[in-house]
Amino acid sequence: MLEKVIRLVTIRNETVRQGLAEALATYILMTFGLGSVAQVVLGRKEYGQYLSINLGFGFGVMLGVHAAGGISGAHMNASITFANCLMGRLSWYKFPAYVIGQFVGSFLASCTVFALYYDAIHEYTGGTLTVTGPTATAGIFSTYPAAYMSIWDGFFNEFIATTLLLIGVLAINDTKNAAALPGTGAFITGLLVVAIGMSMGMNTGYAINPSRDLPPRIFTAIAGWGLDVFLAGNCWWWVPIVAPTLGSLFGIFIYNIFVDFHNRPQPKTESSQKNECKSDSLDIDIRL
Amino acid sequence: MLEKVIRLVTIRNETVRQGLAEALATYILMTFGLGSVAQVVLGRKEYGQYLSINLGFGFGVMLGVHAAGGISGAHMNASITFANCLMGRLSWYKFPAYVIGQFVGSFLASCTVFALYYDAIHEYTGGTLTVTGPTATAGIFSTYPAAYMSIWDGFFNEFIATTLLLIGVLAINDTKNAAALPGTGAFITGLLVVAIGMSMGMNTGYAINPSRDLPPRIFTAIAGWGLDVFLAGNCWWWVPIVAPTLGSLFGIFIYNIFVDFHNRPQPKTESSQKNECKSDSLDIDIRL
Amino acid sequence: MLEKVIRLVTIRNETVRQGLAEALATYILMTFGLGSVAQVVLGRKEYGQYLSINLGFGFGVMLGVHAAGGISGAHMNASITFANCLMGRLSWYKFPAYVIGQFVGSFLASCTVFALYYDAIHEYTGGTLTVTGPTATAGIFSTYPAAYMSIWDGFFNEFIATTLLLIGVLAINDTKNAAALPGTGAFITGLLVVAIGMSMGMNTGYAINPSRDLPPRIFTAIAGWGLDVFLAGNCWWWVPIVAPTLGSLFGIFIYNIFVDFHNRPQPKTESSQKNECKSDSLDIDIRL
Amino acid sequence: MLEKVIRLVTIRNETVRQGLAEALATYILMTFGLGSVAQVVLGRKEYGQYLSINLGFGFGVMLGVHAAGGISGAHMNASITFANCLMGRLSWYKFPAYVIGQFVGSFLASCTVFALYYDAIHEYTGGTLTVTGPTATAGIFSTYPAAYMSIWDGFFNEFIATTLLLIGVLAINDTKNAAALPGTGAFITGLLVVAIGMSMGMNTGYAINPSRDLPPRIFTAIAGWGLDVFLAGNCWWWVPIVAPTLGSLFGIFIYNIFVDFHNRPQPKTESSQKNECKSDSLDIDIRL
Repeated sequence: MLEKVIRLVTIRNETVRQGLAEALATYILMTFGLGSVAQVVLGRKEYGQYLSINLGFGFGVMLGVHAAGGISGAHMNASITFANCLMGRLSWYKFPAYVIGQFVGSFLASCTVFALYYDAIHEYTGGTLTVTGPTATAGIFSTYPAAYMSIWDGFFNEFIATTLLLIGVLAINDTKNAAALPGTGAFITGLLVVAIGMSMGMNTGYAINPSRDLPPRIFTAIAGWGLDVFLAGNCWWWVPIVAPTLGSLFGIFIYNIFVDFHNRPQPKTESSQKNECKSDSLDIDIRL
Repeated sequence: MLEKVIRLVTIRNETVRQGLAEALATYILMTFGLGSVAQVVLGRKEYGQYLSINLGFGFGVMLGVHAAGGISGAHMNASITFANCLMGRLSWYKFPAYVIGQFVGSFLASCTVFALYYDAIHEYTGGTLTVTGPTATAGIFSTYPAAYMSIWDGFFNEFIATTLLLIGVLAINDTKNAAALPGTGAFITGLLVVAIGMSMGMNTGYAINPSRDLPPRIFTAIAGWGLDVFLAGNCWWWVPIVAPTLGSLFGIFIYNIFVDFHNRPQPKTESSQKNECKSDSLDIDIRL
Repeated sequence: MLEKVIRLVTIRNETVRQGLAEALATYILMTFGLGSVAQVVLGRKEYGQYLSINLGFGFGVMLGVHAAGGISGAHMNASITFANCLMGRLSWYKFPAYVIGQFVGSFLASCTVFALYYDAIHEYTGGTLTVTGPTATAGIFSTYPAAYMSIWDGFFNEFIATTLLLIGVLAINDTKNAAALPGTGAFITGLLVVAIGMSMGMNTGYAINPSRDLPPRIFTAIAGWGLDVFLAGNCWWWVPIVAPTLGSLFGIFIYNIFVDFHNRPQPKTESSQKNECKSDSLDIDIRL
Repeated sequence: MLEKVIRLVTIRNETVRQGLAEALATYILMTFGLGSVAQVVLGRKEYGQYLSINLGFGFGVMLGVHAAGGISGAHMNASITFANCLMGRLSWYKFPAYVIGQFVGSFLASCTVFALYYDAIHEYTGGTLTVTGPTATAGIFSTYPAAYMSIWDGFFNEFIATTLLLIGVLAINDTKNAAALPGTGAFITGLLVVAIGMSMGMNTGYAINPSRDLPPRIFTAIAGWGLDVFLAGNCWWWVPIVAPTLGSLFGIFIYNIFVDFHNRPQPKTESSQKNECKSDSLDIDIRL
């Protein structure tokens, strides 16, 4: 009978399955990531320090890759999904399923972390949810630039950080070069995200991913922080959407210019090439 | 002659061997885990910080998996053993052997850590063993919720943390998806436990495991902390037993709904299926 | 058409390709490394501690190896390139391409980190870029010895640290001994650099690499710190060039004397040997 | 000609080669380990914390295993060498070569770390080398129990820590159970040592190894700390020699009783057994 139930709920449509996998993977990434921020902020650095946040997001990425890598490629990042579509590695008609999955997972993770730390947030803030000030808690959920940052310098920070994310992801998976051993790529990708947080995290909170930043921001707007979450940081909210998307493309460009274009099998004759034109244009899977 | 002695003590009964392996693995997990808590608390954060506790339990899990993974699957967690039995992956008649093994290992580890830190506990407390207060030491052995937590929010925290534990364990071992490389799963599982501690540890101490929490609690009740260990936190003691057990099942459910149900070989004909019904109902080993 | 563009920009010359790969790998190493120093210094240890710097350089090395390991061997270090040439593992005519690539990558990384942290440096220093004093920032980019160090003791520190770097690199890659699993060497090499920073970093900042130290120093001289960057530390600037180069050679010597000379296949007959003389003189690849 | 020199210095005697390899591996372990202690103590916790010491010894063990694992098994620990001999896994006539190698490596590492931190020690102590007191520096080199520890409780701490070391080492290498993936065992063994330091390090400094403790103690006696290094801690010096040796044997016993005795191929007929008696008595290599 159990078998019958399973057969009933089984989904054979690949796109839906990939959307579900993206939702789960992004949920894992975000629950570990936001949870570690909450613990550091609300625990007043007694239960972890900035390094814990870096590790929380890094191990979250690692576990997300294990959870969806074999189904959807575990993008967990709308910018990476966009780049994959633009490069012809993923059909455009799958783009909505991926992004909706990521956004739903990210939003549900925000709900979960809010519920987990509901008592602690109340204790920490005395009940007033603020975006700025000494007991600000909106930064648990989405990213805000440091007070000293201008918006364009912040844009540049997010752009460069995502560029390095993509260069790293391409290198880790490039089997024609010096890829990580199959089955260990998730771990190394996690360390890549740890490294980005340790070296480019202070200025802007290293969103480097619309799916990491926008859904929690919408959640906080609804859950009591109000529209300040969109106004703060000189209307910062759009930067973690646009800058990572451009940065992803730039990262792909850089890795190809410096390494991959020159590291491919010799082109075959003109005629045989025509048929493979598309698949040659980007040899490496862009995936977390 | 040595060979003869070995043959005399050799146990061929699989269930007993698995119980012994669980005992050793849980002993390892708990000695490293509780030891790291003791060192952080009694060393007044000069000999480690909260991160050390996360790593202590994480590496403890990793080493426990190496010590028993090939014999018993290295559950080290009564909730996971329960889930395995319920799913038909382990015979119910083995359940007592596993849980007794885990509880004995956990209890012996509590004795060991108490003995190791006997002088330091005396130095730290001045000789009075208390469950709460500025020099409370019961928290070295079993978990207590933070003062600001209500018991049901704590229950939810343990439930969700175990849900994520199981999702992670299933993903790490799911060879149809993106499993960790064989032989590295112990390490990745350790990092999963580190991540749980870094993101969901502050509120309740992340027991996520009856075998980690109950035996040390019984030990402290006997060793001088008294029945307060059961009364503290609004009679918290039963939560780390019930919540992880429900959370385990929910985690299995979630991973199947989002990934695994849809990621199996096409069902065969009705007749051939009947014989395999059971083994199909859960494809992945649930093991730490 | 994309294919045509790619073919136009594709470089088939191996030396140029290797120079480009070295540039990218060194850029990655340095951006993560210098970025983590900037974050620790400018964040006043709220956004990372000394350990973050160790991990930043370590993971930077790891990712650099993934980015160029299959193309150029990912030296990212002029001393290692020099040693490879001297040992006959790399043709001397490739030496300039490697070193220029490394220096350009390192210089561009300095520019990037300066741009990323431009606002934060201004906030931290009040606008005055100094090499020494309470708000010194030159140490974000290149290394300076501690005040208590004499220059020759600093030289010895850099010499020994690079000796251990080379011993470690040789051991990690020596498949006749106990090498790291192929595909995991990048990670273990990263940990080697972490270990050097944790045990030999305080005195001199562990440059252990001319390509890590000189280009950022030139950058700071240009960008506003002035010629003090060359005068400070009793004209320290030449030590991170000379000491690592000598230390590299000594490390190779030590590993051979203690392990490798005695761990080779028995020599063949006199005649057959003559033809392989060169390739026998150093059996192991010296590569990061 | 180089080839001729190499042939001249090449040693074909296996025992000497193993002694040399042990010397190098122990030198690596100790230089990273003692160096990280020096940096934490002399840097007044600004250049690392207790965790850095744990990682320094852990990564030191990892790199030592890579440097000698294929030649001598990389014991780096006289207690482990002793246990191997007692179990018949290593001929007794090799015992001196192993231990002399380890002691020489450890002593040279002490010299190196003293030279590296000569200026810093002078700065920190004002020139007076003391074993106890506010600027004590003998603890950089060898271990001393905490003030609150009695000598027998310290003995128990070293005994248990070494027991767990051996259980871990056996489990990590037991291919009949759930061993670490070949080529990653060095890393996992390093993490085992990290875990021991994080959970059992505070009381006694976790020597768990005569080769780690005695040669640096002799060095400090000579180098200016005087005979106090042997008198301190109620004549503590002999404990890190005797306790780890007994703990090693107990660890082997425990792992066999709980796992390995029951996890061997079925015994063959009485007659065929006699010839293999010895090799059967301990199936797993005891090696770091």
